[in-house]
Amino acid sequence: MQVEVLPSAVRNVVHSHRCGGRRIGLVPTMGALHVGHVSLMDAARRNCDFVIASIFVNPLQFGPNEDLERYPRSLEKDLQKCEAAGVDLVFTPQASQMYAPGAESEVRLTGLTRMLEGRHRPSHFDGVTTVVAKLFNITLPDQAYFGQKDYQQQLIIRRMVSDLDWGVEIVTCPIVREDDGLALSSRNRYLSPADRERSLVLFRALSLAQELAETASETPDSIARQMRQLFSDTDGVDLDYAVVVDCKTLELLTGRPECAVALIAARLGKTRLIDNQILRFR
Amino acid sequence: MQVEVLPSAVRNVVHSHRCGGRRIGLVPTMGALHVGHVSLMDAARRNCDFVIASIFVNPLQFGPNEDLERYPRSLEKDLQKCEAAGVDLVFTPQASQMYAPGAESEVRLTGLTRMLEGRHRPSHFDGVTTVVAKLFNITLPDQAYFGQKDYQQQLIIRRMVSDLDWGVEIVTCPIVREDDGLALSSRNRYLSPADRERSLVLFRALSLAQELAETASETPDSIARQMRQLFSDTDGVDLDYAVVVDCKTLELLTGRPECAVALIAARLGKTRLIDNQILRFR
Repeated sequence: MQVEVLPSAVRNVVHSHRCGGRRIGLVPTMGALHVGHVSLMDAARRNCDFVIASIFVNPLQFGPNEDLERYPRSLEKDLQKCEAAGVDLVFTPQASQMYAPGAESEVRLTGLTRMLEGRHRPSHFDGVTTVVAKLFNITLPDQAYFGQKDYQQQLIIRRMVSDLDWGVEIVTCPIVREDDGLALSSRNRYLSPADRERSLVLFRALSLAQELAETASETPDSIARQMRQLFSDTDGVDLDYAVVVDCKTLELLTGRPECAVALIAARLGKTRLIDNQILRFR
Repeated sequence: MQVEVLPSAVRNVVHSHRCGGRRIGLVPTMGALHVGHVSLMDAARRNCDFVIASIFVNPLQFGPNEDLERYPRSLEKDLQKCEAAGVDLVFTPQASQMYAPGAESEVRLTGLTRMLEGRHRPSHFDGVTTVVAKLFNITLPDQAYFGQKDYQQQLIIRRMVSDLDWGVEIVTCPIVREDDGLALSSRNRYLSPADRERSLVLFRALSLAQELAETASETPDSIARQMRQLFSDTDGVDLDYAVVVDCKTLELLTGRPECAVALIAARLGKTRLIDNQILRFR
């Protein structure tokens, strides 16, 4: 497995593989890799001939009061996991090089990025789209892999790729959960034992949402209300939002739609968790 | 010469040429081609193995009160000029396809795009950077050619490519002028005979600026003042700006700098002209 810090080195390798007819897969990560990330690498490994993982804690996607400083970093372990997952090249750029002094360009979406997570983390998605644009330009992948846990993010990346013509197919992989239902996240390690226990309310609310969606009398609105009620009944969890929205536009829904997604964001102590569930209405 | 309307067709052709080791050159244009455009194609022809010209009147870079509707369109003649210039492929996309309903992504610079032209044409450069990003993603050129006449534009494109890691070298080609000094522009054809005569004040002002720059006692500020005086003395020409600024940052200068550029924008009737001159201080 090759490890490269310089974009130019990655470019050269990719060029020769692309022209050799190999299919390039990219798995962008911020490191602190867990089984969720590995599932993305596994998927890339199945579909592609040359798998690139990037490890970069992107300062641009953290707000001023967020956890950039304490975000977990574990490069050695991460590289071992990449190697075990059959990754061919790991790109580990430096922040000083990714954002040179005087850099002032961004990729920006005006609609999808302003809702839900975008309301609570105002410039977060501008940071995400900008770094992903850079990664796409450096690695020129045929496919790029994102987790469904960041539901809004993968939707935004799809929109960006389509709007601006990157020739990249976006593959979204299922959420990987702990046995008790908590969605894997690099931030779970922040949780105190008590908060870890409380965190299960997210999965319970999503399971409730799916159960209700199968009941003919329930609507997106009534389901969202019952999810929020569950949070009201739980101490120590501050809900940012719990909604049932259109799975493509993230707009609020009326009636019983074809495709909806339940999205939740909640804070437990200093830790913010998100989770979601695509709802099948019967 | 190949003419393609679909991005996918262009992508396929480019991929095979890139992988065949050929150097791809892109000349982005809005059509209404003149000798200035042809000089870009000539330069691309000299340096590259496969030359793409794009012809697309980009609605996104026109303001609500600008000349999108009446902007000259002459596809047949343009194609003949491309063919004569040895262009290999002309990409002529449709606006409805370049900007599909629901598109909401843009490439945006926060500094360079807000000055000078950006003040007078508020969303102009956001439209330029967005369409150029799309063209780069579709054609994946090794080099892209821009005219120095749009001085601020080529600077912005350079910044954008560097900030967001497009693997494209930007080549800026010299301004091509009529015999009497007027810089070639697709908009010159709008000028009435009287305005055509008056338009020479731009070149006179730039020539004056260069002359003054060679005089030890003159500063950027004193030069700019004398350029503006020339416009005050000319009837029928409304000056938007005449400045002498840093040739990289476009910031105002003090002292006698190493690299400065004189930039002018002026309106003659309904026609807006821009021109510039890099100044050599002695």
